[in-house]
Amino acid sequence: MTSEKGITPRATDFSAWYNDVIMRAELADYSPVRGCMVIRPWGYRIWELMQRALDDKFKETGHENAYFPLLIPQSFLAKEAEHVEGFAPETAVVTHGGGKLLEEPLVIRPTSETIIYSMLAKWIQSYRDLPVLLNQWANIVRWELRTRLFLRTTEFLWQEGHTAHATAPEAEAETLLILGLYREFMEQWVAMPVLTGVKTDAERFAGAVRTYGCEGLMQDNKALQAGTSHFLGQNFARAFDVQFQTADGGMDYVWSTSWGVSTRLIGGLVMTHSDDVGLVCPPQLAPYQVVLVPIWKSDAERQATMEVAQRVRLDLQRVGVRAHVDGREGMKPGAKYYEWEGRGVPLRLEVGPRDVAKDQAMAARRTGGKAPLGLGDATTTVPQLLAEIQADLLSRARERREAHSVRGVTKDELIARMEAEAGFAYAGFCGDGACEQAIKERTKATVRVLPDPEFRSPEAPTRCVWCDRPALAEAVWARAY
Amino acid sequence: MTSEKGITPRATDFSAWYNDVIMRAELADYSPVRGCMVIRPWGYRIWELMQRALDDKFKETGHENAYFPLLIPQSFLAKEAEHVEGFAPETAVVTHGGGKLLEEPLVIRPTSETIIYSMLAKWIQSYRDLPVLLNQWANIVRWELRTRLFLRTTEFLWQEGHTAHATAPEAEAETLLILGLYREFMEQWVAMPVLTGVKTDAERFAGAVRTYGCEGLMQDNKALQAGTSHFLGQNFARAFDVQFQTADGGMDYVWSTSWGVSTRLIGGLVMTHSDDVGLVCPPQLAPYQVVLVPIWKSDAERQATMEVAQRVRLDLQRVGVRAHVDGREGMKPGAKYYEWEGRGVPLRLEVGPRDVAKDQAMAARRTGGKAPLGLGDATTTVPQLLAEIQADLLSRARERREAHSVRGVTKDELIARMEAEAGFAYAGFCGDGACEQAIKERTKATVRVLPDPEFRSPEAPTRCVWCDRPALAEAVWARAY
Repeated sequence: MTSEKGITPRATDFSAWYNDVIMRAELADYSPVRGCMVIRPWGYRIWELMQRALDDKFKETGHENAYFPLLIPQSFLAKEAEHVEGFAPETAVVTHGGGKLLEEPLVIRPTSETIIYSMLAKWIQSYRDLPVLLNQWANIVRWELRTRLFLRTTEFLWQEGHTAHATAPEAEAETLLILGLYREFMEQWVAMPVLTGVKTDAERFAGAVRTYGCEGLMQDNKALQAGTSHFLGQNFARAFDVQFQTADGGMDYVWSTSWGVSTRLIGGLVMTHSDDVGLVCPPQLAPYQVVLVPIWKSDAERQATMEVAQRVRLDLQRVGVRAHVDGREGMKPGAKYYEWEGRGVPLRLEVGPRDVAKDQAMAARRTGGKAPLGLGDATTTVPQLLAEIQADLLSRARERREAHSVRGVTKDELIARMEAEAGFAYAGFCGDGACEQAIKERTKATVRVLPDPEFRSPEAPTRCVWCDRPALAEAVWARAY
Repeated sequence: MTSEKGITPRATDFSAWYNDVIMRAELADYSPVRGCMVIRPWGYRIWELMQRALDDKFKETGHENAYFPLLIPQSFLAKEAEHVEGFAPETAVVTHGGGKLLEEPLVIRPTSETIIYSMLAKWIQSYRDLPVLLNQWANIVRWELRTRLFLRTTEFLWQEGHTAHATAPEAEAETLLILGLYREFMEQWVAMPVLTGVKTDAERFAGAVRTYGCEGLMQDNKALQAGTSHFLGQNFARAFDVQFQTADGGMDYVWSTSWGVSTRLIGGLVMTHSDDVGLVCPPQLAPYQVVLVPIWKSDAERQATMEVAQRVRLDLQRVGVRAHVDGREGMKPGAKYYEWEGRGVPLRLEVGPRDVAKDQAMAARRTGGKAPLGLGDATTTVPQLLAEIQADLLSRARERREAHSVRGVTKDELIARMEAEAGFAYAGFCGDGACEQAIKERTKATVRVLPDPEFRSPEAPTRCVWCDRPALAEAVWARAY
């Protein structure tokens, strides 16, 4: 049952629009549990398609899935100094089990480094046991004060990769391999272009040596951190005493990485593409890529149009297209169009009695445009059309991002920009956390990344945008989710 | 790194054997958290294969996946009287979040009926919204005192189906549809034959009207409840006020079902097939179905045997066989055989220099038997061989079960049987919980099911095995996990 309530236009209230789109598409719903949401079948199907694509990439690059306990002894968190400081304030704590007070409280995992390293200490003895390339699909709890569907919820679903290596360069290479793989997924599946680069200390994962991130730009010109990949150095190995015998007979701590993306990606998908009618879902992640709507008045027409619709559905499914026939009785075609548009289905094929005679359908793209489509070669043209829609979404999003990116700003421009339209602002950065903090206080903008070479400005900035001291690197500022 | 420790023989100590098999195959490991285990990659891959097969079956029959919160307000459990009695003593309770004492404690889901019905009350208004056919893949926590890897752990992974229907017969039909689907999966994938039937009140799910179960018989002749499907009547609908407008304009509560299988199935797989050498994994669920071991002395031999092994692997993968080449250097073939046998790989293909010349391999089945296999038509013969191994495992297990089943026992025979070899004992049952309780106290055996027609004895028993009053039904007793 789709909500009949209208969608607040983006221009009126972006945040209300976002919630309305999610409700109309039935991606998720609020639960009676503070800060926790229910992911409804349409939203969960998108997550499953994301999982499948990412999981294939992880397995192709030699990673294996495993599963570690949900509950972690509270003392484990404290073993890595930065880690406990970062996560302890956000934990949900189990104090009672089976009717009794526990001797040591357990926290629900806010991330699994600690429990995983306690096991790696047992499993890794020699360089022959390395690398260990693990991934886990799991639920996570972080006690958030302000929650928003998909973007920030007390419980969320994610994958967390954890790898251990014999050398620092190997671990660094893994961190970057995953960063590239995330970017490829975000661009090719979510059709969400992302900036990649390294994070400043202020935005670094608690316990990491270096954090790399993927940053998308949403339609309200705020940045979304869509995935992170951390080089952990030997921090967790030392904290949990994960040592191994090296090839030349010595002992060393393993070098490690961790990396994750979450159901937050669905929020990114919504805010990158959707419009005032509802969800726009990229074909690669659409639960139904094509919905066929037969149109009839008489029984004979019903039979004829249904027959064609079902035949085309089967043909399309045979070539791997997720096609669906909406043959519901007692519902007008217009109501069906409205529903599937709200749910973001990329392509609708309307099959009326006259279309049957001409062996065609009226093809309506969710992103605009309506034209007859011959059904004889639908198994060729429909996949092409879907690929075209997918590519268009990415290039549109990229154009939008570039239109809202500005390079080489001055201090005054940075302030004015963040107060007006926001977006990405590129400028020099001295690397001093004090400047970063001052900019944040003045503009609410943070350094999203020190961008990777391909995103950097042709001319490297030489001075810090804030203090005018020499720039250590170029940085990208934005207000962020 | 596979443990070098020997495996305790089944005959010496079945329980130690079970743990040893799991450790040697690296299916799982003990964690530092009381009662919680780590599922290692080899075990998790088996779970993923189980998930894929079951999930396909659920989707084919119209079910959709969704995700509901991990944490449930403690008061929700209390809304269904039997439910709270059954589950409250087993819960893990979160009392603190974000550093503060919670106003109402939250329990970690021991099962999700309550949170799901609180949402269904919001989503279901009319008969047009029915049926609702949901499934969730999730982690569950039940505070168990005595835990065993896979069989009974404080946290476990499972799927839980939850459906709501307009009529009782529809809900009943759903309960049985799933029971049949579970049985098919257990027989065709796990190669574990199961008895199906209805549970007695003593073994019924807390809150259900009727519980149906699938019961396997392990190699120690103890029964394993491998899956259950519950007809919930209107119990949860009443507790959470899930009403709908009927087609004729009245109001009624929905009729509902729930059903689940868990990582316990992996324990069933282990105890049904494995031997004193290690795991025996049915081909349908084997992470690698075939391992190719090239055998060489010289570099030239290494190149030749590796080339053949890789070619055959690619050929097999092309026809959907999960094949792997073990080309590790510095490890003798015998050590490789030992490792893959312990991991339960169904078929090993040894490729030596002389085999290369003859375009053949030595094919060794995990379940016994070694013979040359021509490589020219491996893409035909290997899948056939795997299907044969799969079928053999099922029929062996079925024969073993029948050899340890006895029908029409008297009271004394029931007692003697349960004290000696255990197994399944069929006899008449008056239906009185007092008899059931007395039998349990005397023999440690419980009624596993009142078996479905196809499992019943040709001649229906007329008297209760314990009290000699008229039998209400035939029942199957066993000691159970």
